Amino acid sequence: MEKNHVVLIKCADQKGLIAAITGVLFRNNHNILLMKEFVEPETNTFFARFELSGELNTETLHTQLEDALPAGTRISINPKRKKDIVILVTKEHHCLSDLLIRYYFNELHANIKAVIGNHDILEAFTEKFGIPFHFLSHEHIERNDFETKLSSLIDQYAPDYVVLAKFMRILSPSFVAQYEERIINIHHSFLPAFIGANPYRKAYERGVKLIGATAHIVNNDLDEGPIITQKIIPVDHEYDVKGMIEAGHEIEKSVLADALKLVLEDRVFVVRNKTIIFN
Amino acid sequence: MEKNHVVLIKCADQKGLIAAITGVLFRNNHNILLMKEFVEPETNTFFARFELSGELNTETLHTQLEDALPAGTRISINPKRKKDIVILVTKEHHCLSDLLIRYYFNELHANIKAVIGNHDILEAFTEKFGIPFHFLSHEHIERNDFETKLSSLIDQYAPDYVVLAKFMRILSPSFVAQYEERIINIHHSFLPAFIGANPYRKAYERGVKLIGATAHIVNNDLDEGPIITQKIIPVDHEYDVKGMIEAGHEIEKSVLADALKLVLEDRVFVVRNKTIIFN
Amino acid sequence: MEKNHVVLIKCADQKGLIAAITGVLFRNNHNILLMKEFVEPETNTFFARFELSGELNTETLHTQLEDALPAGTRISINPKRKKDIVILVTKEHHCLSDLLIRYYFNELHANIKAVIGNHDILEAFTEKFGIPFHFLSHEHIERNDFETKLSSLIDQYAPDYVVLAKFMRILSPSFVAQYEERIINIHHSFLPAFIGANPYRKAYERGVKLIGATAHIVNNDLDEGPIITQKIIPVDHEYDVKGMIEAGHEIEKSVLADALKLVLEDRVFVVRNKTIIFN
Amino acid sequence: MEKNHVVLIKCADQKGLIAAITGVLFRNNHNILLMKEFVEPETNTFFARFELSGELNTETLHTQLEDALPAGTRISINPKRKKDIVILVTKEHHCLSDLLIRYYFNELHANIKAVIGNHDILEAFTEKFGIPFHFLSHEHIERNDFETKLSSLIDQYAPDYVVLAKFMRILSPSFVAQYEERIINIHHSFLPAFIGANPYRKAYERGVKLIGATAHIVNNDLDEGPIITQKIIPVDHEYDVKGMIEAGHEIEKSVLADALKLVLEDRVFVVRNKTIIFN
Repeated sequence: MEKNHVVLIKCADQKGLIAAITGVLFRNNHNILLMKEFVEPETNTFFARFELSGELNTETLHTQLEDALPAGTRISINPKRKKDIVILVTKEHHCLSDLLIRYYFNELHANIKAVIGNHDILEAFTEKFGIPFHFLSHEHIERNDFETKLSSLIDQYAPDYVVLAKFMRILSPSFVAQYEERIINIHHSFLPAFIGANPYRKAYERGVKLIGATAHIVNNDLDEGPIITQKIIPVDHEYDVKGMIEAGHEIEKSVLADALKLVLEDRVFVVRNKTIIFN
Repeated sequence: MEKNHVVLIKCADQKGLIAAITGVLFRNNHNILLMKEFVEPETNTFFARFELSGELNTETLHTQLEDALPAGTRISINPKRKKDIVILVTKEHHCLSDLLIRYYFNELHANIKAVIGNHDILEAFTEKFGIPFHFLSHEHIERNDFETKLSSLIDQYAPDYVVLAKFMRILSPSFVAQYEERIINIHHSFLPAFIGANPYRKAYERGVKLIGATAHIVNNDLDEGPIITQKIIPVDHEYDVKGMIEAGHEIEKSVLADALKLVLEDRVFVVRNKTIIFN
Repeated sequence: MEKNHVVLIKCADQKGLIAAITGVLFRNNHNILLMKEFVEPETNTFFARFELSGELNTETLHTQLEDALPAGTRISINPKRKKDIVILVTKEHHCLSDLLIRYYFNELHANIKAVIGNHDILEAFTEKFGIPFHFLSHEHIERNDFETKLSSLIDQYAPDYVVLAKFMRILSPSFVAQYEERIINIHHSFLPAFIGANPYRKAYERGVKLIGATAHIVNNDLDEGPIITQKIIPVDHEYDVKGMIEAGHEIEKSVLADALKLVLEDRVFVVRNKTIIFN
Repeated sequence: MEKNHVVLIKCADQKGLIAAITGVLFRNNHNILLMKEFVEPETNTFFARFELSGELNTETLHTQLEDALPAGTRISINPKRKKDIVILVTKEHHCLSDLLIRYYFNELHANIKAVIGNHDILEAFTEKFGIPFHFLSHEHIERNDFETKLSSLIDQYAPDYVVLAKFMRILSPSFVAQYEERIINIHHSFLPAFIGANPYRKAYERGVKLIGATAHIVNNDLDEGPIITQKIIPVDHEYDVKGMIEAGHEIEKSVLADALKLVLEDRVFVVRNKTIIFN
């Protein structure tokens, strides 16, 4: 049976929540394909994710769940559909090309509506895949104005998510606030090690034996948002900085693709500065 | 809150199972700490595992769940307690010593009731930890008689599980049948590669770049039972057979310890020749 | 300093080989950037790889090394250059697209001269990158004739290597013999587990907790050639065959890319049915 | 053939070093089993490690190598022998017990001369293995005096290396200076993330998806010495701090054992704040 809807529930924990939710689903004759739940102990918050097959009336189910659950419960009933994304890039291609290839072969679970670059290096490549590319230089322009133009470009596509695929500009808190929990970034280190610029140079200087990459949701603080996925690969003394950068590209694109898949399939909850991931 | 009971449910899938179970739990005022479920698609079987806190009357809950669920449902309500195990060994110490150390420092979630060896090499070591060691040679004795004596030794401890910690004798189907789904073995390859004897020699001959270990439940067919855990490590041309064996020991003990933890915490279901693991 | 030449040496082991080789290099004032050696114990064969910077006269050095080393020594002095490859595909794109992207962005260390498919599904995609695509159906044609046409297509590009990027036809020994140690294949399992067709189906049936991919040099026996690289990823009971296939694609392309890099950088020696890899 | 000696060479790089060294070895009729070399690019330093079989006169070879190599070359000719170590612990047993088991079964490549604890919790356990345990409390004593007593205890065993197996006291620079490049520590994070106390608590707070462990050589700065080995394991939102600590123990002991093996086999060079590892 096919997954047709994902139902997400978040509320203060109390006894009987699963019974209440599954009671509503059973009385409506809905079939649960998969269910995951978790109670976050520090905030005592209940999180649950249900995959349902078959048809359903979203509004009716929403009302019934609302009636059955405590006031203040956040309920989200997401029909299976491809989400819309806009990708921001600078010069490096590897995360972008990975996403474009997945999109082209119908494996991304998302529509790439546009790519925006603060350099134009990746324009011709992007357009091979029939995706509009917008070049918006950050030079000779105030940061505020740059971000206003950037928002304006993004907003014309009304994307569900904005993906920073090695976009090497720092975004201001006010920009980020416009897309709360909707900006996904790839950082080229295993955070919190090597926050900020030139992490591979720092990794080389420190002589680490593992290098990593981290995909996270962007919030106000640079490289400090809730982490979705991380991966590492071993390195040794034969790696120079360039070798680390090349090796790192392999996991950066992989980590971003994994994180995006989780986000696009409605598997990621944020609580405080962490993620709960139902995969 | 502490986990006090684990409830395991297995039945033919139908709509409303989770609602029925959680309804019973809610009406009894039980608190679900964690719940996992899965519907195995080929047999259409529903599996669920609940961790409950607080006190409960096992019999009452069992009856109520039985009433609420389809006929033929297997229900198991396990209070939190250390399981009893007996360990079988031959000459190699690494899996045994790993388990003894965990036991000694109260980290094993099991009582090691006895160690039985078909060699006596590990006797003095075992007894350091106050565990009885039985030496039962397989030499100058018919296999049938050997196994009868072995069963008899095992059964005097009435263990929940029998752990083959590099026990290098093949056990007959009739022996195994006495301990259905209760014998855990560690095999020194990533099954199904290199079934049978001398897997590291075979791995060396084949020139693989990964070697592995597999912990599985033993059934009638050698190295063919349901797999619980597997791990691998990289090797290269500088490894000879001896080097592979030494490196392999590191993952063998780790894989067995992981598998045993899953089993002892009631996280492993068997369906056909596979495991469903709620971890 | 830049690596300009790679020198490969293979001969029966005896004392003094490194002294003899490095003596020649020193007297010619060559600079060794990196040196690796290994004596294969079963055949008592010496293998060495040197990276040299600076200019050199290939013929002179070859003669001098020949004079300094035992009769029968195989000496190969490879100037730094991109090798030529031809890629064979069937329907799946993921390995091909990975290689095309690397090629397009000048990261492949090879020239992709052509792509040949026994289906035409990947034709339009390949041509986006300016690479000729040849469609050669295996239907309505004898295998011998198919392979004759295939060789003829390949040979017009005189490639250094032929890459089977999920090419799902079995090649005959006589075909393979034409490209000794020059055909690289990706197999979608951690060999020797699940040799042959449908490895993910077999992995699913067996209930393994790891799935893998293997890149190897093709010889006469199906999936039996010398292994270059292998990787695995964990799976669990929630993976169906389709899920395993999708997850497997991620490592297949990664393993093939890694193996090809090793081959293209002259890091792979073959001895009997194994590889020695100087990386 | 058995490895009988390891020869280590370190000097400023120049052409002809390998030729010079291997020329000496050849003229003395020594057989090289394995050779590794590396030129560290930032300091332009040449490092090499040779494994030799057969008998040799250490003094003669040392003199001949000295004559053949530039002034200032550091030459070390180490006969195959078990090194002596002293282990420092606090309360946690897992690294100590791992090392004691390896020692007991003759797998450690070292003699454990003594264990010193600033708590006495591990005394009875240590003594099971016939190893002297010294309890030296850090309470009611000045740090200077504590360290003086500690040195004095250590020095009576004249160990080659001091192993901090979860020794939870910070050692002063003057203490460390007495054992330059001879103290090996295990830190319970993937450095440089989570330097200092309570790394698992910090990892939990940050919501990382990987936790790690790092074995390093101790120098003046806390957790800042040259890294030998690092490993990570995945975690998710179901891990609390206690769960992370338990999971972390598994890699801590493994990382320390791996690092110690490299050190005891003379495979680790230090250059600036990094290691070069010939494994």
